[in-house]
Amino acid sequence: MIISMKKGATQEQMNQVREIIEGFGYRVHESKGSERVLYGAIGDERGKERLTCLEAQPGVEKVIPILAPYKLASRETKPDSTVVDLGLGVTIGGRKLTIMAGPCAVENEEQIMEVGAALKESGAHMLRGGAFKPRTSPYAFQGLKSDGLVLLAKAREKYGLPVITEVMDIASIELILEYADCLQVGARNIQNFQLLKEVGKTNKPVLLKRGMSTNIEEFLMSAEYVLSGGNSRVILCERGIRTFETATRNTLDLSAVPVLKERTHLPVIVDPSHGTGHARYVERMAYAAVAAGADGLMIEVHPRPEQALSDGPQSLRPQEFKAVMEGIRRIANAVDREI
Amino acid sequence: MIISMKKGATQEQMNQVREIIEGFGYRVHESKGSERVLYGAIGDERGKERLTCLEAQPGVEKVIPILAPYKLASRETKPDSTVVDLGLGVTIGGRKLTIMAGPCAVENEEQIMEVGAALKESGAHMLRGGAFKPRTSPYAFQGLKSDGLVLLAKAREKYGLPVITEVMDIASIELILEYADCLQVGARNIQNFQLLKEVGKTNKPVLLKRGMSTNIEEFLMSAEYVLSGGNSRVILCERGIRTFETATRNTLDLSAVPVLKERTHLPVIVDPSHGTGHARYVERMAYAAVAAGADGLMIEVHPRPEQALSDGPQSLRPQEFKAVMEGIRRIANAVDREI
Amino acid sequence: MIISMKKGATQEQMNQVREIIEGFGYRVHESKGSERVLYGAIGDERGKERLTCLEAQPGVEKVIPILAPYKLASRETKPDSTVVDLGLGVTIGGRKLTIMAGPCAVENEEQIMEVGAALKESGAHMLRGGAFKPRTSPYAFQGLKSDGLVLLAKAREKYGLPVITEVMDIASIELILEYADCLQVGARNIQNFQLLKEVGKTNKPVLLKRGMSTNIEEFLMSAEYVLSGGNSRVILCERGIRTFETATRNTLDLSAVPVLKERTHLPVIVDPSHGTGHARYVERMAYAAVAAGADGLMIEVHPRPEQALSDGPQSLRPQEFKAVMEGIRRIANAVDREI
Amino acid sequence: MIISMKKGATQEQMNQVREIIEGFGYRVHESKGSERVLYGAIGDERGKERLTCLEAQPGVEKVIPILAPYKLASRETKPDSTVVDLGLGVTIGGRKLTIMAGPCAVENEEQIMEVGAALKESGAHMLRGGAFKPRTSPYAFQGLKSDGLVLLAKAREKYGLPVITEVMDIASIELILEYADCLQVGARNIQNFQLLKEVGKTNKPVLLKRGMSTNIEEFLMSAEYVLSGGNSRVILCERGIRTFETATRNTLDLSAVPVLKERTHLPVIVDPSHGTGHARYVERMAYAAVAAGADGLMIEVHPRPEQALSDGPQSLRPQEFKAVMEGIRRIANAVDREI
Repeated sequence: MIISMKKGATQEQMNQVREIIEGFGYRVHESKGSERVLYGAIGDERGKERLTCLEAQPGVEKVIPILAPYKLASRETKPDSTVVDLGLGVTIGGRKLTIMAGPCAVENEEQIMEVGAALKESGAHMLRGGAFKPRTSPYAFQGLKSDGLVLLAKAREKYGLPVITEVMDIASIELILEYADCLQVGARNIQNFQLLKEVGKTNKPVLLKRGMSTNIEEFLMSAEYVLSGGNSRVILCERGIRTFETATRNTLDLSAVPVLKERTHLPVIVDPSHGTGHARYVERMAYAAVAAGADGLMIEVHPRPEQALSDGPQSLRPQEFKAVMEGIRRIANAVDREI
Repeated sequence: MIISMKKGATQEQMNQVREIIEGFGYRVHESKGSERVLYGAIGDERGKERLTCLEAQPGVEKVIPILAPYKLASRETKPDSTVVDLGLGVTIGGRKLTIMAGPCAVENEEQIMEVGAALKESGAHMLRGGAFKPRTSPYAFQGLKSDGLVLLAKAREKYGLPVITEVMDIASIELILEYADCLQVGARNIQNFQLLKEVGKTNKPVLLKRGMSTNIEEFLMSAEYVLSGGNSRVILCERGIRTFETATRNTLDLSAVPVLKERTHLPVIVDPSHGTGHARYVERMAYAAVAAGADGLMIEVHPRPEQALSDGPQSLRPQEFKAVMEGIRRIANAVDREI
Repeated sequence: MIISMKKGATQEQMNQVREIIEGFGYRVHESKGSERVLYGAIGDERGKERLTCLEAQPGVEKVIPILAPYKLASRETKPDSTVVDLGLGVTIGGRKLTIMAGPCAVENEEQIMEVGAALKESGAHMLRGGAFKPRTSPYAFQGLKSDGLVLLAKAREKYGLPVITEVMDIASIELILEYADCLQVGARNIQNFQLLKEVGKTNKPVLLKRGMSTNIEEFLMSAEYVLSGGNSRVILCERGIRTFETATRNTLDLSAVPVLKERTHLPVIVDPSHGTGHARYVERMAYAAVAAGADGLMIEVHPRPEQALSDGPQSLRPQEFKAVMEGIRRIANAVDREI
Repeated sequence: MIISMKKGATQEQMNQVREIIEGFGYRVHESKGSERVLYGAIGDERGKERLTCLEAQPGVEKVIPILAPYKLASRETKPDSTVVDLGLGVTIGGRKLTIMAGPCAVENEEQIMEVGAALKESGAHMLRGGAFKPRTSPYAFQGLKSDGLVLLAKAREKYGLPVITEVMDIASIELILEYADCLQVGARNIQNFQLLKEVGKTNKPVLLKRGMSTNIEEFLMSAEYVLSGGNSRVILCERGIRTFETATRNTLDLSAVPVLKERTHLPVIVDPSHGTGHARYVERMAYAAVAAGADGLMIEVHPRPEQALSDGPQSLRPQEFKAVMEGIRRIANAVDREI
């Protein structure tokens, strides 16, 4: 942290600031500029957030953080990329890309089995499907709940694909752990810290979806919550942020891929379905995500999008998905990756 | 909902779209423009969100919502403004403004009692204080939890001020209900739909803080979750949205006040402390909020902001708060309100 | 500027960075943290933007600006608030608020005269009206051009109100100077630096409208362009920024008022018409702007908004404007200002 | 346009709205929903923007546009993709990708010649370089102006690469036309409509850079200004939009590529240098842009970024650029394109 004093701050004000910094257990380094005095607080970055309260101290102009506030998620702490085991022989974070696909919501047995068969045929690695659904409207379909989990497990058994599904609250974690290979924390819960703490205590991998207004640093702090709980199997997913542009449902921030790969050792995937909100843009953004360096993709697939109970507009039909998988394979080769 | 067909859509495609709309239980109204055919789906708006899946149907260009998807929160449903009873004789939503104030987090007995005394003296109506704190960093102070609730109750008893505190998860609702007069759902949980459903089942008023990237319609849909659970005592709080501007912690969207007052009968308050993030801008934005038509304010007050365990930079000292209360009184009179 | 070296930067890399900083004419101050070395570059802030290129130097992690890059616009340079003379006895920046009003575009003599009469009656101080109109569509009304200027001058003469109108390009400055008392640079031209340089050479006051994605610092840098050209009569206007919210045309950033009043000595006004885009929200946001500390307002008034050639939805009728003026007067008194 | 009446609008209000619509020359189509009446205005979309003023009419709730307001830029008007001739045998918009590269600003002969040689060796197609520079600060380097144009022409002659450079104002168009093969309108001038009209009268291709807060529709309307002036050689460039994320200088909106390719026949390129602001992310975002379907790229290259007079942090060194070109070639092949 750098504490910048106001032009004209008094000696007494400067002394008080020094005292407070030292009182928090940091060493103080003073730097006299042409107009202002700066103080650096030297010591462990993790607790420095408290120093921001110095802004309330007379004579202080502003408090400027220098270092990242996350440790366990940082590539400085662990330079080698983390490879996460997702079960049934599937991993993520290595040279091989990991493709997760499936419907937004599990609707019935026929639907999930059709999708399972299509994924298997296309070479996808993991089945996604929501049993508990966070919906903006209380009047919209809220998911099949435990019945949905049972159907996911059936598809898992038949097609040999590990299963990922969303956990919306602490109460349902235990039930979901019985059926799922990987827990997903949705964009709207990315700063539901109680939930993050609880999934941090489980022994299953956790996929975190970036929130609509979560910046990169906050996203990594949410990962830090899970990691500091003892669960080291965390996967990050870029799925679009909220901006002024309305041509797409969200604005897919693909630059987040190289930025995250630089700052953290955790695997990073991209969800072009939520990122764009329209099936006709998914193919191109899936290719772009792989070219940008993503370790995998999450894509919505539904046998009959025009009748889907949720997210129909952004779901690919099985045949469309198959074609996209071919294209992904070509891009993967071009960047020395493979499916 | 309006379904706009593509230029050149075939008769067969148009027939299929008509059939699907009717299959969902709506009447169809056709309108032929100079270049395109539009279909209107006529019937109860609450279930129409399903029609968006028509975008996946061949020949469809886009699906355009016309009406608001909320009912219980709408001023069309209930033209008269709702007045919410907050306990101990305090109400919100009428001619009288309701001022809630207090520290970001309850830190110890001395602190909360000092604040309680200051509020009483200044004429504030309600004491706020966090016992369970949502923090971006897992290494930051997480609140005194149940000890904090006990301290709030002590201050409540001593100063006769009803108490509002944040509920972060379902598990702690029961405990918090024992101590608090009003439950607060924080900005980061505004789309934690499980939590909204649960607070909707309680018999205490619920204050909902707008999320950093929640638009007005989504905000009202979150209120609709609580209302449709049976709890009609909902208060809305504008507290700043996330934009590109970094001079303030968030961008306080004061236009949201007249927009919300037009669309809903629920009381609307403003939190200028989180909205700006810096104590020196709180006074002016408090005045502006009252001038914009807010029914109340929530302001952070701390006896020693430079030592606060959270949100020090945006907290007013008791003396500063007292002066702001004077100014608020003058603005209130100018818009035919009173404190 | 602070230059933060990477963890593990070599001594040679550090030496090179020091040399480059010194080569640019700054003194270097070294600060050793627990993990990183920081360099401070000490000297005149105005040229320091060049130091950002150090990010391309091996071993450098990032370059962090500390001080504001503007000088002439800064309140540090000139602590007293600037009062700008607008002609015909009207000033802005003192205790008295200055209300500018009028149609988006001058359409014909009848229209502008009706508005002029209404302003005079309501006690407004200045007439606004566009002769050259920036329109998103090339097929929309582009303004009456020089005929519009002539009509503005007629209204000016009849009602004794100074006139402000937009200048869209360098070529029309000379013509506009003949008729207008104040030049307006629109939001879309706020970083049209050639235009800023040219209006900086004129001897008429210049009102700068904040761009839709211009942050406070950039806004002040645009003012710095005009000021450094020799024209010290600059007025700043907040008129809404672009965010994800679509309930209003823009998001009126009223916090910008206290932020700007703190950083600069220049007068600051607010345009609630463009800020909200809907006439029914203008009244409340006008009040809020005055409560927030604005030195004046710019409000769109049109005798028949439902037939306006541009911005009809956000224009007040003369009778509505009169009522708003009454409310503004009350708010002004409540914050020790007057109209 | 759809005009939605308020619930409870009177018959007289409805009649007046019908009359106004017809008065503007449109046919009216009425549609009665379960709660509201809607009117469709049928006729040429280009003038319909005027209908928005109906929002000011009593009984009207809102006015909803249905069709795109651009014609000449639309793929509906011209289904085949436009191929633009850039001079010296270089084209853009066909199967072959077009790579433009060079320094942010022309600084001196040595610099521009070094870059020219590097581009030629790497297989780039066009040389970019700023002679007139739009800078946020009036104290920053403003470009070599006409001397810069002369140097660009020298490099053009020696290396056989057509040249693109920015035009900042109408006054310098004539001079720039003597030296450049393609005119660039920068992000800050994308709604400088006078400038758009003027470049629309020239006979040279025009590259339009999307503004920081310009949405897709507005971007196409800016293209429409140039096209309606008679110049059909327009190229669109995505270069990042402004969002809350600060890890990158802008947020590169790569979804804009498939969205634009769907809506318009004009060539679309991407500038990953401005899009990210940091050289270390340029490689990956260049690959992603090609995978997303871009027709070309614009990349900043400087022989010594650590001494660049502008945009050093985002400029590639010649050797880095060469490696990126190899990677682009592989991605291009994977999507059936070539360099």
